[in-house]
Amino acid sequence: MSRPRILVINPNSNSIVTKGLEEALKPLDFAGGPEIVCTNLADGPYGIESQADVDGVTMPLRWLVESDNSSAAFVIACYSDPGLHVCREGTDRPVFGIAESGVLTALARAESFGVIAIAQRSIRRHMRYLRQMGLMERMVGERPLNMSVAETASGEGTLARMIDIGRALKDEDGAGAIVMGCAGMARHRQPLEQALGIPVIDPTQAAVTMALGTVQFAAH
Amino acid sequence: MSRPRILVINPNSNSIVTKGLEEALKPLDFAGGPEIVCTNLADGPYGIESQADVDGVTMPLRWLVESDNSSAAFVIACYSDPGLHVCREGTDRPVFGIAESGVLTALARAESFGVIAIAQRSIRRHMRYLRQMGLMERMVGERPLNMSVAETASGEGTLARMIDIGRALKDEDGAGAIVMGCAGMARHRQPLEQALGIPVIDPTQAAVTMALGTVQFAAH
Amino acid sequence: MSRPRILVINPNSNSIVTKGLEEALKPLDFAGGPEIVCTNLADGPYGIESQADVDGVTMPLRWLVESDNSSAAFVIACYSDPGLHVCREGTDRPVFGIAESGVLTALARAESFGVIAIAQRSIRRHMRYLRQMGLMERMVGERPLNMSVAETASGEGTLARMIDIGRALKDEDGAGAIVMGCAGMARHRQPLEQALGIPVIDPTQAAVTMALGTVQFAAH
Amino acid sequence: MSRPRILVINPNSNSIVTKGLEEALKPLDFAGGPEIVCTNLADGPYGIESQADVDGVTMPLRWLVESDNSSAAFVIACYSDPGLHVCREGTDRPVFGIAESGVLTALARAESFGVIAIAQRSIRRHMRYLRQMGLMERMVGERPLNMSVAETASGEGTLARMIDIGRALKDEDGAGAIVMGCAGMARHRQPLEQALGIPVIDPTQAAVTMALGTVQFAAH
Amino acid sequence: MSRPRILVINPNSNSIVTKGLEEALKPLDFAGGPEIVCTNLADGPYGIESQADVDGVTMPLRWLVESDNSSAAFVIACYSDPGLHVCREGTDRPVFGIAESGVLTALARAESFGVIAIAQRSIRRHMRYLRQMGLMERMVGERPLNMSVAETASGEGTLARMIDIGRALKDEDGAGAIVMGCAGMARHRQPLEQALGIPVIDPTQAAVTMALGTVQFAAH
Amino acid sequence: MSRPRILVINPNSNSIVTKGLEEALKPLDFAGGPEIVCTNLADGPYGIESQADVDGVTMPLRWLVESDNSSAAFVIACYSDPGLHVCREGTDRPVFGIAESGVLTALARAESFGVIAIAQRSIRRHMRYLRQMGLMERMVGERPLNMSVAETASGEGTLARMIDIGRALKDEDGAGAIVMGCAGMARHRQPLEQALGIPVIDPTQAAVTMALGTVQFAAH
Repeated sequence: MSRPRILVINPNSNSIVTKGLEEALKPLDFAGGPEIVCTNLADGPYGIESQADVDGVTMPLRWLVESDNSSAAFVIACYSDPGLHVCREGTDRPVFGIAESGVLTALARAESFGVIAIAQRSIRRHMRYLRQMGLMERMVGERPLNMSVAETASGEGTLARMIDIGRALKDEDGAGAIVMGCAGMARHRQPLEQALGIPVIDPTQAAVTMALGTVQFAAH
Repeated sequence: MSRPRILVINPNSNSIVTKGLEEALKPLDFAGGPEIVCTNLADGPYGIESQADVDGVTMPLRWLVESDNSSAAFVIACYSDPGLHVCREGTDRPVFGIAESGVLTALARAESFGVIAIAQRSIRRHMRYLRQMGLMERMVGERPLNMSVAETASGEGTLARMIDIGRALKDEDGAGAIVMGCAGMARHRQPLEQALGIPVIDPTQAAVTMALGTVQFAAH
Repeated sequence: MSRPRILVINPNSNSIVTKGLEEALKPLDFAGGPEIVCTNLADGPYGIESQADVDGVTMPLRWLVESDNSSAAFVIACYSDPGLHVCREGTDRPVFGIAESGVLTALARAESFGVIAIAQRSIRRHMRYLRQMGLMERMVGERPLNMSVAETASGEGTLARMIDIGRALKDEDGAGAIVMGCAGMARHRQPLEQALGIPVIDPTQAAVTMALGTVQFAAH
Repeated sequence: MSRPRILVINPNSNSIVTKGLEEALKPLDFAGGPEIVCTNLADGPYGIESQADVDGVTMPLRWLVESDNSSAAFVIACYSDPGLHVCREGTDRPVFGIAESGVLTALARAESFGVIAIAQRSIRRHMRYLRQMGLMERMVGERPLNMSVAETASGEGTLARMIDIGRALKDEDGAGAIVMGCAGMARHRQPLEQALGIPVIDPTQAAVTMALGTVQFAAH
Repeated sequence: MSRPRILVINPNSNSIVTKGLEEALKPLDFAGGPEIVCTNLADGPYGIESQADVDGVTMPLRWLVESDNSSAAFVIACYSDPGLHVCREGTDRPVFGIAESGVLTALARAESFGVIAIAQRSIRRHMRYLRQMGLMERMVGERPLNMSVAETASGEGTLARMIDIGRALKDEDGAGAIVMGCAGMARHRQPLEQALGIPVIDPTQAAVTMALGTVQFAAH
Repeated sequence: MSRPRILVINPNSNSIVTKGLEEALKPLDFAGGPEIVCTNLADGPYGIESQADVDGVTMPLRWLVESDNSSAAFVIACYSDPGLHVCREGTDRPVFGIAESGVLTALARAESFGVIAIAQRSIRRHMRYLRQMGLMERMVGERPLNMSVAETASGEGTLARMIDIGRALKDEDGAGAIVMGCAGMARHRQPLEQALGIPVIDPTQAAVTMALGTVQFAAH
């Protein structure tokens, strides 16, 4: 009998990011559990940095979800949760957004949380989304790395910069946990957590964990 | 090499409830994943129904957590999350409360949620706790079964009553998801979800799912 | 010298609705003031009823706004404010959404407001949007007509049904003002206001009023 | 046939401020539109700076509104909105407060707003009022010029000081729009907006714009 | 040595209400404690029922407070707290409003509270004031007796009506405590509390209690 | 006839703190009023500094309250309000927590308040509790002395340090009143208030004042 599948959709077309997701999610790949498949949105932009990038992938995500008859759950792997509600409208199967799941998981770990964003310009969009989710009360701040997605994924100095920003969120803003506000930062999670001494949440890992629970319990 | 262990602590002394937890959590018992162990608090009350029941188990939970050197994560399996903060103070390992995890997981599934409580008297305590968590904005209501924990766990009419209450939460209060506000209702999750047509969250399953993710990613 | 132009964009392709907008906005067409031009989105759906309808027009709206070099301000004339933020990102000129403007204008008229929606299914989307705007505190409720956009625009019984719903919002929910939650209800504004005895806001009129002020003061 | 009249009431007795209002509102004086008349409260204080100044003009404003049978709408042109609710109680015609209208209009232009106050001492009163209006969620801060009303209206260095304060609100507090927290700052609106690069709202212009829309649509 | 004085100001001119206040406050008249003096505002209206009644007494209250050099603290004994902030501005001595004190005292007694208002029309004003105080989170509702102040103070059926309304607030709205929303209901406090089985707060008693503490501790 | 008794329970075993409470409460000891008795929890910790200290005294407090048949009201004199809800569950007589009463009393004195904490580590617990009480809206900040309870009660430099912290809360955070976040600071209240020029609230005095009012009015 085939394993149920969780489809993790990277809405950008950067396959290095997708490979990073596959790597980051291996710890949830259990013999008796769901299959975790990561995919690109074929025509997505190279990175999702503007509101236009976000809104430009919502309907392609919907079409992908609607046309997929074999996945048991979906994860939209971009920290702006593009198309989350339109995808949910298009299927009865669960759809998780990594920003939502990341923040909710941080709330299960600490009194308060802060977010590391890649760029200053996305913070306003993230704040608007937090307000939409009604999850502002325990947020203490969001601070940018001011690096591109590409730099973040590959750059040498990324971890050092993340530690600096994480320390500011912890020490100046009072964060009890950190959410990494990007799908491509997973390999920095463990060293960042060690350096800061507080929980650090990779949002894709958080979302796929929730998806795995949903799929497993639905089937039993 | 031994598997990391998630210790699920039922703070009451009713071993039937603990057995039910074991049963409910089997879908997360993967060969390559953490071992999930359910246990009773030796001297807990038979059920946790009053504030005194809640506050009476907080320090015993702390002692249990502190004296346990071998678990990788803890889940407090009572919908009042007794001792959550005092246990977190006593260990660096993650501690999850099922009420918190249940509500957070519901927020990942729908715009709004409602809660099925066992008894009217616990609703005020739950509301105070939701306010403490800062998670009231998308809560639409909590309604009681008005049955004892024991009745709920074993009774014939429980599911029918849960469906009635769930329908009121969905149709009158506007809930988009339901949280079962008790550790002993897991076996009703699936039929209730089917009857209502909206996601139903068992809070212990939600918390152990989060614990599993945390343990798996910590180890890699 | 040419008058500055306010472009009012009906994102659906129903030209009867666009004609209704033109009619509804005539009172703001002053000789010395801005020209108010109403247009359709060429390939918009016949009505905007689902999240897919909303998300399907966001990028076409952006393209229209970006390619327009001659308008001084834009109004998106659909009560879901599709594409509001992506259009604002694409131009330095002001862009107004009718839902946002309608609610803000209601807040200038009364202590509290209620909304008349066309369909039950859109209420959840509207509530999410109100939460995103941070404007829930004085909202007392939203109630549906449960009619189609087409029926609303043309139907005989529409006004009577609106009065019923408006009375429920006023007398049961405590609304001090009513926002008509649709771009196609303007011709009912005055008789509805007279029947209810409290301010009734047509959201397109509210948005174009704000746009007119912005354009006039920018030019001086 | 006579034009409907919007009566803009400056509650202080400083006729230079009233003249400034007339000047500032000319762009809304359309041949086919309402007549906009600015007036002083005969016995008002020279400036409204204290709570006593505010509370001292509420009943005179009520009497003026009640005894006026010919205006179609009223605007109270003081950033503390003195007597707004008692005036609304005394007439069926719409009454606008410039603080309320200014803040609501800012919310239609940007994600967040900040306020430039004249004096430190009025900030606490403004905050209390924002809380009363339920409009705190998107407010990022209020900063004082620490100049008198008179200095602000006439002084040479006013604009430079406003730009400094506006930059602090934008860059340090994150304001996406600025509300000028005084009735006498209108002539600085345009240069301030140009210097800051974000929308700047003159509250009297905002309120009279809303009044104009209300009057025009009521008559049709 | 003379006792410090707490001046309780009934802003209406109905001396029967003032007499009732004197009676209601006797339990706080200790030999070694402050003198509690109740007075009328000479030219106050017979009852404070409208916003005009409220705003009409604010400056007279300020003048009375300012011209009084011998009282150690002031209590404004009207459930709309007229002039509270303008009186505080006019003196360094503490000024208490009975609505504020009543609500704050209810919050010290129960998880949630409801208010019994005299008239429907004052509820909107009270809600606006609760929002201004930032004290809405634990308020469950306000319901009117729909009697005049005079009827309430003297009428036979008042207690029975209050019990009905109090039961609705407790049983339907979930109030854990009741605030009597008027200065003239004190004699019903005890029987109402007995009938309902939850704390009932007389707001004047609550405010004078706070004033007494402030005066006693200031003097030591 | 015997006087009703208010039992003030210091949950730590430090009798110097208890003596300080007795001293601090003398101004409320009226001949005709309730007897105010201060007591220690026999087996309490020497100071309440951790969550374990808090949770360790909740049930002993409940037992003490339940076994006391002669007190008319109880005050729990520790700024974490340990056991407040479990004590309320165990008796029909009123139980006051000093943190709750202190904050509520501050809200009756000023627009906003700040808290002086003893240690940094307790601030997160206090914030969680403020959120639980729904009383965050007018809180501007909490700052630590970073001294032990013992040092605070006896140390020479305590007042000077409190003045520094109080000034930061007033001038940088905007506090209009200060709550002293500890049961053992009462003797510093008056000089601190004089130094800061804004109301300073001793929370035990605030709670016993409320208790006194409740007891006096219950008996009449």
